[in-house]
Amino acid sequence: MALAELSPSHTKIHSPQLSYLSTCHSNHRGLSLRPLPRTQIARVVCSVTSTQQVQSPPIQVEDSKKKPECYGVFCLTYDLKAEDETKSWKKLINIAVSGAAGMISNHLLFKLASGEVFGPDQPIALKLLGSERSFQALEGVAMELEDSLYPLLREVSIGIDPYDVFQDAEWALLIGAKPRGPGMERADLLDINGQIFAEQGKALNAVASQNVKVIVVGNPCNTNALICMKNAPNIPAKNFHALTRLDENRAKCQLALKAGVFYDQVSNMTIWGNHSTTQVPDFLNAKINGIPVKEVIKDTKWLEEEFTEMVQKRGGVLIQKWGRSSAASTAVSVVDAIRSLVTPTPEGDWFSTGVYTTGNPYGIADGLVFSMPCRSKGDGDYELAKDVIFDDYLLKRIKKSEAELLAEKRCVAHLTGEGIAVCDLPGDTMLPGEM
Amino acid sequence: MALAELSPSHTKIHSPQLSYLSTCHSNHRGLSLRPLPRTQIARVVCSVTSTQQVQSPPIQVEDSKKKPECYGVFCLTYDLKAEDETKSWKKLINIAVSGAAGMISNHLLFKLASGEVFGPDQPIALKLLGSERSFQALEGVAMELEDSLYPLLREVSIGIDPYDVFQDAEWALLIGAKPRGPGMERADLLDINGQIFAEQGKALNAVASQNVKVIVVGNPCNTNALICMKNAPNIPAKNFHALTRLDENRAKCQLALKAGVFYDQVSNMTIWGNHSTTQVPDFLNAKINGIPVKEVIKDTKWLEEEFTEMVQKRGGVLIQKWGRSSAASTAVSVVDAIRSLVTPTPEGDWFSTGVYTTGNPYGIADGLVFSMPCRSKGDGDYELAKDVIFDDYLLKRIKKSEAELLAEKRCVAHLTGEGIAVCDLPGDTMLPGEM
Repeated sequence: MALAELSPSHTKIHSPQLSYLSTCHSNHRGLSLRPLPRTQIARVVCSVTSTQQVQSPPIQVEDSKKKPECYGVFCLTYDLKAEDETKSWKKLINIAVSGAAGMISNHLLFKLASGEVFGPDQPIALKLLGSERSFQALEGVAMELEDSLYPLLREVSIGIDPYDVFQDAEWALLIGAKPRGPGMERADLLDINGQIFAEQGKALNAVASQNVKVIVVGNPCNTNALICMKNAPNIPAKNFHALTRLDENRAKCQLALKAGVFYDQVSNMTIWGNHSTTQVPDFLNAKINGIPVKEVIKDTKWLEEEFTEMVQKRGGVLIQKWGRSSAASTAVSVVDAIRSLVTPTPEGDWFSTGVYTTGNPYGIADGLVFSMPCRSKGDGDYELAKDVIFDDYLLKRIKKSEAELLAEKRCVAHLTGEGIAVCDLPGDTMLPGEM
Repeated sequence: MALAELSPSHTKIHSPQLSYLSTCHSNHRGLSLRPLPRTQIARVVCSVTSTQQVQSPPIQVEDSKKKPECYGVFCLTYDLKAEDETKSWKKLINIAVSGAAGMISNHLLFKLASGEVFGPDQPIALKLLGSERSFQALEGVAMELEDSLYPLLREVSIGIDPYDVFQDAEWALLIGAKPRGPGMERADLLDINGQIFAEQGKALNAVASQNVKVIVVGNPCNTNALICMKNAPNIPAKNFHALTRLDENRAKCQLALKAGVFYDQVSNMTIWGNHSTTQVPDFLNAKINGIPVKEVIKDTKWLEEEFTEMVQKRGGVLIQKWGRSSAASTAVSVVDAIRSLVTPTPEGDWFSTGVYTTGNPYGIADGLVFSMPCRSKGDGDYELAKDVIFDDYLLKRIKKSEAELLAEKRCVAHLTGEGIAVCDLPGDTMLPGEM
């Protein structure tokens, strides 16, 4: 889903020096070599292992507390407290976004800044992570944010080192990932992106808020989220999410169309499992106008054979028509995912998100990041939905996605500190329209 | 500013037939030839004239009342009235957007749909105008809007004929324009885009709400807005705007940076004149924390020599850094422009918009679309700001922009029904970063 490029973690990383600027136009970018060995990186796909990986690297406190590079007008000081008297704003929150120069972020950042996500009384700081190659584009994004004059957007900083950028982050929206190159196997992709997410997990562990909420969008997002989580042992495991909300939204739209109702009538839509072609859009539990879908849509053949395919093919059809991937609707679904965690879930409904399985009531294997139906009180946390029913057809499909995620997990064992990686992945299960 | 392409108006236009669909996936696009001769088009740059142009073409009522093609889930019927009981929503408004498959629209449409522009209680219908070439992309945009499940977005229709798409439009956001090709003179661009905006003016006149508010973004936007207006004699002249809000926003940011304050402290920022390099960002009337800018920023040399240049070069710098034009911040500025008309202007402040000059108190020649300081009661209308001061330096620069707009007007006389076009334009005054 995320197409923006990042430096792979075995690349030498430069950290921009802190510099306060007095112009929107240029941003001097001092480069200094980080002196500490960050990680022991597996360079060979699914073959090198290191149980050291799960431990945080020995970051010096001083170094890790370095602020990322503020940008332009956002380097200016301001007195939010003084303004508070007239505005009664909440305390500033820090939101880190990786792949910040990419197309999904280009939509998402402006939504965050506008107040659409966290509300009109919530000032925010955006911390933008890019790659060395995309640094200039990152400056361009920051310039456009300046020119948008969003009153809620109080700080913007940009950088290419997650140890700088993730400083004090309360939300980390991990969008950046390496796209799949020509001839690249899913195993290669898992390893390359796994290294990025291992590095980012360590960085979050070292410098972010210890209650940071993490939403992984970069693919393969479930296993990336698992790797990220395993490399951040100080952050609660339940704070890590893999984005399956776009799949949920697409599924709702398809059910609405088939039933001939407007999409706001569809509820209780679960995406089970992996964000891949083994995902399970659940029409057994979904409801239309409060009535089970199967009682409204009698065409079982359509539900069993076409519905899932239509949800999954959506991205591919879009690329065909529009010539680009679904950046705008992906960004909307990230907004939805965040809002589902910071606003109470409507009575009786739930939402889908990929979360860590540990003692779940559905019989899904522990130790995976698996999309499941969740509810939230609006405090940033979630609980698993009750009143979920299963039949053999649904269970069989969930098992297939579970098997795939277990295989992906074995394939990245060298990145999660769980021993020697063994890759026995099934065929290509990337969703069409995602690279 | 607008880079999306449109069919030039001398191309044969096909109008998609009305068809109700039962799938998100494909949209059958029946093509039927419009039987009526639309306009007498000037094919030779600045040389052919026709006083007939200002009159509306003889559109049959039946034909002009044809609905544009609804898309996917938005073809479904729903009962907004029934929902009203729980939602207390306002009456649906129709918003037409041209260049709808382009990058600016790709940001703007989702902002409109989210409620960011018209508020959380205002359901909307989006009418998307594209070109024959971009029709598939238009379907892609509609698909992404479907997948976003915005509850306020009740109708989406797509089409390539402005006589269909502008039907009952209460807002027309005219973003699409032909980009300047290699070796193309400004006069050529004025003529090519002028023809598009003449056509769209006629279409608005024939089928839109007779109080439609029109915001022209496609360049050269001032003269395009003038042409559009002149071809829509039944719509009040004061309903037409040319977008100079991005310039205003950029100017505020630069003043904030120079003064070392946050941008929300800058007010009363006027952009005078043309959206071109003759535009005048007015530092004489602008205020920082309520104090005249010249009392806060003592560096007169910077104000007189660098400030305007920095505002104008912004788009060019952005293209250099980011590799794309400023689609996101342009869309934000369109949002700002609309909101300035539908919410009351804060006491003592004003905003800039290019409007028709007729009996203005500033001594600017009548009959131009000229950016000036305006205030609104929030009813969609505006009045010109009072308490504006002038000095020789400001007046001299305003006169230069006025002279340019008078020259542009003479150059498109064949499109405004004002006789034979004569082109004596000064050198290239396109803003850097805009094509």
